[in-house]
Amino acid sequence: MTLGYLHNELLKRLRVYVAPRDVERTLMALRSSDHIWEIVERSQVPMRVLCTLLELLNEHGLVDVFNGSIKLTELGERLCEENDIAPFTSALCKSCDGRTVDINALGSSVIEEFKRISSERPEAIQEYDQGFVTDETTLARVTFMLHRGDLHGKEIAVIGDDDLVSIACALTGKPKRVVALDIDERLISFIGSVRERYGLSNLSVVRHDLREPLPDWMVGAFDVFFTDPTESFIGFKVFVERGLQCLKGAGCSGYFGLTHVESSLNKWRNIQRFLLESGAVITDIVDMFNHYVNWGYIERMRSWCWLPVKVHPKGTWYKSSLYRIEWLEPIELPKVRYDGNIFEDEEAATT
Amino acid sequence: MTLGYLHNELLKRLRVYVAPRDVERTLMALRSSDHIWEIVERSQVPMRVLCTLLELLNEHGLVDVFNGSIKLTELGERLCEENDIAPFTSALCKSCDGRTVDINALGSSVIEEFKRISSERPEAIQEYDQGFVTDETTLARVTFMLHRGDLHGKEIAVIGDDDLVSIACALTGKPKRVVALDIDERLISFIGSVRERYGLSNLSVVRHDLREPLPDWMVGAFDVFFTDPTESFIGFKVFVERGLQCLKGAGCSGYFGLTHVESSLNKWRNIQRFLLESGAVITDIVDMFNHYVNWGYIERMRSWCWLPVKVHPKGTWYKSSLYRIEWLEPIELPKVRYDGNIFEDEEAATT
Repeated sequence: MTLGYLHNELLKRLRVYVAPRDVERTLMALRSSDHIWEIVERSQVPMRVLCTLLELLNEHGLVDVFNGSIKLTELGERLCEENDIAPFTSALCKSCDGRTVDINALGSSVIEEFKRISSERPEAIQEYDQGFVTDETTLARVTFMLHRGDLHGKEIAVIGDDDLVSIACALTGKPKRVVALDIDERLISFIGSVRERYGLSNLSVVRHDLREPLPDWMVGAFDVFFTDPTESFIGFKVFVERGLQCLKGAGCSGYFGLTHVESSLNKWRNIQRFLLESGAVITDIVDMFNHYVNWGYIERMRSWCWLPVKVHPKGTWYKSSLYRIEWLEPIELPKVRYDGNIFEDEEAATT
Repeated sequence: MTLGYLHNELLKRLRVYVAPRDVERTLMALRSSDHIWEIVERSQVPMRVLCTLLELLNEHGLVDVFNGSIKLTELGERLCEENDIAPFTSALCKSCDGRTVDINALGSSVIEEFKRISSERPEAIQEYDQGFVTDETTLARVTFMLHRGDLHGKEIAVIGDDDLVSIACALTGKPKRVVALDIDERLISFIGSVRERYGLSNLSVVRHDLREPLPDWMVGAFDVFFTDPTESFIGFKVFVERGLQCLKGAGCSGYFGLTHVESSLNKWRNIQRFLLESGAVITDIVDMFNHYVNWGYIERMRSWCWLPVKVHPKGTWYKSSLYRIEWLEPIELPKVRYDGNIFEDEEAATT
């Protein structure tokens, strides 16, 4: 049994991209945990690939599944030893959780107020591919924007806002204007009521289906966009294109998240190509910056049926990298309607 | 006076790229410090552009230069107020300095041993465009590699090693093999003597001029490369191409640093294009990860004569982002000799 054989078998069984190092990363994760969701998180291998690989390892007697856990067998351990594969080791800074910034830069009243507000937010629902991030994540995003000069005096568009980034931005009092765009009536009315209750006159909220072109008044009107795209390639493009269309032009910046759970490294590369071709430069990619709170509909995810062990997660496991881009050479982007299912492709099926 | 006017004037005076936001970033830095090297660091504007802009601001009475400091005048402050430009604010995590990782994951004996060794290193010299990073930086690089599975059991090539990354890697005892490549006899003999003194049998060192193609035995022989390229576009390509040529193939990874001091965002974009075209994907960009110890030849830098205020730096100011790439689709790269000066272009002239 070789790693190359396992890689080839995966390629035969799957219609999706398998990264050259997916087998190695999965074995590293398996050496460090027997809990399926920790393995998903630590391997950074797309779930579509990971689940098929675990099945394959099971068939070859390299892992055992029992009692809700999945474990390398003696044979599996030997394969790791032979290939010098060590257990996954986390070396992240415990102070910032690897996010680079200290949210205390926002001041304690912003932090406390935001946490109080977010405790009353609406539940995540599957219909809109929702799944929101932890309070620390939202606050760290805004801290990152502060650090990069993307907050003070800026007009900020938040494209899809179940994470309540617009509220955290507005609470700092620094932006000139924050506009949140979402399809979900519950969020619209929640953000609207926070605006009233806290007197956040720089905050507004608009109901919009992103498959439709942006309203004219939003085109070319903002300095910064923030979005957390759905991760099918087409869905990703729709979110980021809309974000770019909001921008005033050269020198404006954009933020978004991208996972390894739903996006292979090949999709990452295609997305990076798309960003460069759109006239942007990538200034930052911070691994595992965004941590998602577990959502209620996990058993109804398309990927649930792929799992070799059907147990619920213990802690946060769905994480994404934070990208920051800066627009250098704005190009004309299509202002079109996107029809049909923009949420799924062969890799993206987690939410 | 508008920001647009200043941007246009810069374009007229310079033959290099001026990013759309360079003026804004410079003003943010000026509002937060009157020390030229802090302004270089905080603005993240290439020195070539920054120095010309400061000259321009001076001509228009927007800054005053006196007594070794440079300060916004009342007129300059008003320009900032009118354009809602706030002082630069750092929000970096103080625990990891924004590097995402905790070097303590390496264990205290590796840390102490490395610091002891590095205290005896040779001085940085201009002839080879040297300028080494702080001990914390080198240790954080190796911690990052550990976290990403790029250390244990790996064959690692360090292309140019005045930062002593090869020694820190070898001290952990984890890599299968570490080979450092450098042109500087002093470094060759220093790394060689450390190898003997500490019994680091997995460490070796080779004298090589990177303008020459790699020795055959190094081509396709490594899992990971690490390099800190000189930042002219051609010099950068030479270093990274040699790095990629060292790699065994798909799934292998590479690390390098890139500054804003010597590289405009346009050069960043061209470099990102080059990486994607070479078959790589960018997995991480961590801003300001690498901190350089001030070198002895600062007054002999080409950029010294551009400075509006000729004072010495107080602390570290030359910093670079850490890039990690993974090779997905290896392509054939030219194995050629590069002639002439690969160290300079219009932007890169700091070291």
